[in-house]
Amino acid sequence: MAGNVFGQMFRITTWGESHGRAVGVVVDGLPAGLPFSDIDIQKELNRRRPGQSEVSTPRCEADRVDILSGIYEGVSTGTPISMLVWNADVKSSAYDDIKNTPRPGHADFTYIARYGIRDHNGGGRSSARETVGRVAGGALAKLLLSTFGIQIAGHVLELGGIRAKTLSFEEILENVEKNHVRCADPEAAKKMLEKVADLRLKGDSVGGIVEVIAKGVPAGLGEPVFDRLDADLAKALMSIPAIKGFEIGAGFEAAQMLGSEMNDPFRIEDGKITCVSNNAGGILGGISTGKDIVCRAAVKPTPSIGKLQQTVDLTIRENTEIIIKGRHDPTIPPRMVPVAEAMIALVLADHMLRSSFINSRTLLK
Amino acid sequence: MAGNVFGQMFRITTWGESHGRAVGVVVDGLPAGLPFSDIDIQKELNRRRPGQSEVSTPRCEADRVDILSGIYEGVSTGTPISMLVWNADVKSSAYDDIKNTPRPGHADFTYIARYGIRDHNGGGRSSARETVGRVAGGALAKLLLSTFGIQIAGHVLELGGIRAKTLSFEEILENVEKNHVRCADPEAAKKMLEKVADLRLKGDSVGGIVEVIAKGVPAGLGEPVFDRLDADLAKALMSIPAIKGFEIGAGFEAAQMLGSEMNDPFRIEDGKITCVSNNAGGILGGISTGKDIVCRAAVKPTPSIGKLQQTVDLTIRENTEIIIKGRHDPTIPPRMVPVAEAMIALVLADHMLRSSFINSRTLLK
Amino acid sequence: MAGNVFGQMFRITTWGESHGRAVGVVVDGLPAGLPFSDIDIQKELNRRRPGQSEVSTPRCEADRVDILSGIYEGVSTGTPISMLVWNADVKSSAYDDIKNTPRPGHADFTYIARYGIRDHNGGGRSSARETVGRVAGGALAKLLLSTFGIQIAGHVLELGGIRAKTLSFEEILENVEKNHVRCADPEAAKKMLEKVADLRLKGDSVGGIVEVIAKGVPAGLGEPVFDRLDADLAKALMSIPAIKGFEIGAGFEAAQMLGSEMNDPFRIEDGKITCVSNNAGGILGGISTGKDIVCRAAVKPTPSIGKLQQTVDLTIRENTEIIIKGRHDPTIPPRMVPVAEAMIALVLADHMLRSSFINSRTLLK
Amino acid sequence: MAGNVFGQMFRITTWGESHGRAVGVVVDGLPAGLPFSDIDIQKELNRRRPGQSEVSTPRCEADRVDILSGIYEGVSTGTPISMLVWNADVKSSAYDDIKNTPRPGHADFTYIARYGIRDHNGGGRSSARETVGRVAGGALAKLLLSTFGIQIAGHVLELGGIRAKTLSFEEILENVEKNHVRCADPEAAKKMLEKVADLRLKGDSVGGIVEVIAKGVPAGLGEPVFDRLDADLAKALMSIPAIKGFEIGAGFEAAQMLGSEMNDPFRIEDGKITCVSNNAGGILGGISTGKDIVCRAAVKPTPSIGKLQQTVDLTIRENTEIIIKGRHDPTIPPRMVPVAEAMIALVLADHMLRSSFINSRTLLK
Repeated sequence: MAGNVFGQMFRITTWGESHGRAVGVVVDGLPAGLPFSDIDIQKELNRRRPGQSEVSTPRCEADRVDILSGIYEGVSTGTPISMLVWNADVKSSAYDDIKNTPRPGHADFTYIARYGIRDHNGGGRSSARETVGRVAGGALAKLLLSTFGIQIAGHVLELGGIRAKTLSFEEILENVEKNHVRCADPEAAKKMLEKVADLRLKGDSVGGIVEVIAKGVPAGLGEPVFDRLDADLAKALMSIPAIKGFEIGAGFEAAQMLGSEMNDPFRIEDGKITCVSNNAGGILGGISTGKDIVCRAAVKPTPSIGKLQQTVDLTIRENTEIIIKGRHDPTIPPRMVPVAEAMIALVLADHMLRSSFINSRTLLK
Repeated sequence: MAGNVFGQMFRITTWGESHGRAVGVVVDGLPAGLPFSDIDIQKELNRRRPGQSEVSTPRCEADRVDILSGIYEGVSTGTPISMLVWNADVKSSAYDDIKNTPRPGHADFTYIARYGIRDHNGGGRSSARETVGRVAGGALAKLLLSTFGIQIAGHVLELGGIRAKTLSFEEILENVEKNHVRCADPEAAKKMLEKVADLRLKGDSVGGIVEVIAKGVPAGLGEPVFDRLDADLAKALMSIPAIKGFEIGAGFEAAQMLGSEMNDPFRIEDGKITCVSNNAGGILGGISTGKDIVCRAAVKPTPSIGKLQQTVDLTIRENTEIIIKGRHDPTIPPRMVPVAEAMIALVLADHMLRSSFINSRTLLK
Repeated sequence: MAGNVFGQMFRITTWGESHGRAVGVVVDGLPAGLPFSDIDIQKELNRRRPGQSEVSTPRCEADRVDILSGIYEGVSTGTPISMLVWNADVKSSAYDDIKNTPRPGHADFTYIARYGIRDHNGGGRSSARETVGRVAGGALAKLLLSTFGIQIAGHVLELGGIRAKTLSFEEILENVEKNHVRCADPEAAKKMLEKVADLRLKGDSVGGIVEVIAKGVPAGLGEPVFDRLDADLAKALMSIPAIKGFEIGAGFEAAQMLGSEMNDPFRIEDGKITCVSNNAGGILGGISTGKDIVCRAAVKPTPSIGKLQQTVDLTIRENTEIIIKGRHDPTIPPRMVPVAEAMIALVLADHMLRSSFINSRTLLK
Repeated sequence: MAGNVFGQMFRITTWGESHGRAVGVVVDGLPAGLPFSDIDIQKELNRRRPGQSEVSTPRCEADRVDILSGIYEGVSTGTPISMLVWNADVKSSAYDDIKNTPRPGHADFTYIARYGIRDHNGGGRSSARETVGRVAGGALAKLLLSTFGIQIAGHVLELGGIRAKTLSFEEILENVEKNHVRCADPEAAKKMLEKVADLRLKGDSVGGIVEVIAKGVPAGLGEPVFDRLDADLAKALMSIPAIKGFEIGAGFEAAQMLGSEMNDPFRIEDGKITCVSNNAGGILGGISTGKDIVCRAAVKPTPSIGKLQQTVDLTIRENTEIIIKGRHDPTIPPRMVPVAEAMIALVLADHMLRSSFINSRTLLK
């Protein structure tokens, strides 16, 4: 209840602060019999890791995952998987300036309001570094889903107002890792990179939109009423730092559409019932239709910018100014792609177990 | 887990189908000592009730709430409040046509995929009638919040592409119930009503945007990481039928903003720390800032339209067509306002109890 | 969280006070496709109902169950089942004496300490009448379990120090309803009835032990560590009013046994691995062995007795005395049998769904 | 839901296998502002640690706790506390014999039935080593409770049929650590030690009873109906390996008592309402009375004994025999005392937060 646990049957608990000793996750509910190794986890963590390009912060972290439990002879045992990544490259003193001057757009002020105390170094628990645990847990969720033919692909759909052209699931999968903004449309990617380079010079930042698509989800997944699949997906993405909006299928455009445009007609295709179009984004009444699940998250610009900003001094309770030192990501969406994929995977894995599409006792044949 | 329970400390369980015997809710977690009566509940149910105007379906239902437990001598006892509304005006035969032909945009097909069976009359459990329980539970949440100075106001911000001008919280509260589209801007409301009248004639429908604002929420409410206040608000609104998108504060616009535009500067005002602007929508890092919480939901057009639509016959598994009989709301947002307010109230009440801003044992002095 | 919800995947929420308008339950998580009717529920409620014999209170209640949702054409739809029983025969004035003088052994004092307020009539929410909802929900759990060959039998093993001889599962099932103390050993039953008759004359009461056996539970049911099957069974029985102890298998006798006596040897029988003896009570490491699950609950004597008792006056905070008027059950175990069976059934149904022994989507073929 | 998470507001997740790399716990929900250090945790872990005497297994483990998150400048931050203990002294080969021959009284067979796979080394996840995480989490719960004047004391009340005389809370606290059987009655302790020494020679084992008392719990703690304080305490103790029974207050003796003996009269003492006696064990209707909470757990004899036992070979599915090698605790209760205390502390801390006796936001003044 204290908010660090996510999921019902496939459940993760994350822990750790940005500049503490380590960050990690405990995964509870992975069925027994799934073969995996640290390579599966590391692959996703490497995608999340900063310092990979000029788009992201140059903080250097090896981010090597350490699997401490729940695996035996290369196979999950059905018991909790504890994984951690040790923190390195921790220069806490860099944050002394901001101890008493909350950074605009950050959680500094609200954490003080909530707890009366916080580890201000690197944002503590509110840091994006917390997402290491999500990505590690999501890697296992993805692996579990893949055994049932479910694939997940995320990409940067829009950045700083530049929008990628429409792409197929396969095109996204194939191209998304080919550039540093994780945009699968090479031309849009080029413009995005220029925009980011320009903003970096200006000490400013910009937002964007991340899209995640899940392919192969069988019809009938999800719960009615409160735990609708789309409601849980919304919570999952909105729980990532810096997200200000969520939409599924036609999303906010649906607000301006006519019913005759919006409704996806049903047809028989290859003997199966399917929707011809997918304005629903793969979900009707909270339950999957069998079409791709397509959802998007609006990401705000990085709050850490190089410009002078107005803030207050918490100790003397007076107005003051702040310039945030150090180099920061001028844009978040590229690094958010693997995090968003992880959250979607966690929700789908959880619902697969809840709905008994899969046998949660064991995957062993 | 089966999806009909919402909330942790302030928890509701809803039940009932559109054309079953009754619909209802059990509220668990309301602190003892809150004075209330059926008038408080009825007031909100009346706002949700259909048949009030040309904008909504003419189905006539008295929707009288029956409070069965948890109240003694006009005051809550801390035990569960069970409330129900009997169903009347139930003409099930009207739905015989659609038993085997799922309506596009409805949950008919996915319920069959999920359960293998469904009560097709009036949409059964996936009907908007399910929201009666939410509104009744939300009425108690609102009452609880009001004792702490928290007020909630919802309104139709946009309908069929027509957008209301920017209004203050007080203007919304004062004007929202003055017209049938629940738009607090009289001029926009007039245009919306015209649009709706036109669509009714054409047998079509249109979507819109509902905005809900919570005033008086103290700074420091919410949990970090997964149970962020905004993540829970997103889940709450996305769990309402027909919602395709959620945003908070600047929302999807944030995706195109610069950090220097988006960040809300902190200032001291009347000795209190506050944000000058409110692009954050009242929440940073998942925790409230003390500013108004401002969120919006994109509502799709009513899926029941008077036009011929393509669908399939579930029994013979062949393509067919459907015309949905009867009269239906040509637009959903106006009736969704009280439902959206209820869901926001439920989340805030839950977090108030979780965060111990209020003493959950008793409200008695 | 407020304590009126039980179970994870098969979840019930009970509501209602002894002398309120009704008592009821919402069952969430029953898979779709289970045929049932009010007769299945009524059968169990009739066993719980008071006024059946000289052993129990003569309060007359028809206790007719009203099923309000979740069933369509005689089959469960997978949506919540709401059931209620209207209260009748409510003479609240009979309780005016005890409004300010908490009855020893009752929850009167602790409810005031917890809530600052209570509906004192008939014990309000702490009344045994609350168990109506449990029994109704348990009836559905039993029905679900029976489709998988799991049977549950409860009986009074001991009453006022008189203990039944050892009986087989079949003997218990066959004889338990043949006498008013629900003891399947006719000779012990006779002595128990005499004891109860004697205590009634003396205005006193006595406790006993209820045993519940579950037959046909497959090996491998349960969760490790905290949600062990025996831990959940313990919580289930200890949550019933008046229970002061729980044991499984050898129970408290195990505390005096040697390891060489206690350990159940494994053997192959009919090609299946089984335990020769059953000191474990059907559970090892929190997970079922496939043997009968055998557990017992110690029931305290009815706290409402006809003798003068010491108590306090809550208003003037002074010592006083109390004589509880009216006629009360001189012993609880006989009426507790169906309640204990219901709680065991609820736990087993929940774990069956959690462990995916059964497909929680639908029972339809 | 997978069973490795305990508690609602004060929640722990444990992980790790006996012979894996480490065992650990994540504590979620500890309010901010509690001063603590690894010394507070280590103190309790040292009490749990084996190899301290002739009563327990000679396995040598330093069991040094490593606190990885949630603490800043010596004070809790309100974020999750992750703690682990590295495994050492791991000789897996010692367990090769039992890989396919389930040990009677152990969870070997049921884990295979549940998961189809298990880490058989040292019992894997079903090992008592799993309780390291409970004790570490319980240490924080105790610390939190102590700030509210709540103290917890556990002791061995009975071992191998030898029962300690009745002792006061203070006598237990003072004497319990003075001998290796953790019996606060020196004379009984002496006899217990002799019994254990004798059993060790004979290769056999014996059970006992652990009692835990909580002092200073205010009246009014707990939830009604399902989450009764005693129901949660029962689940907590029954979730510890090797426990076969639970009782509170008069416990199983209540089954033979008269109502006139059992009921605790209320009296005014020092201006406060209290119970004169404490047959209730400090809880009525699931809610605390303000008297000491007194509960007991029946512990079975250590299943690992030095005698020849009947079992089966899982691979060839034939009957066979087993002699368990190595030295094992001939009795469990002494080492279980700190574990039982931890579980009781976890339940009380959770209910304190749920009931808002304490402000869960911060303990900072």
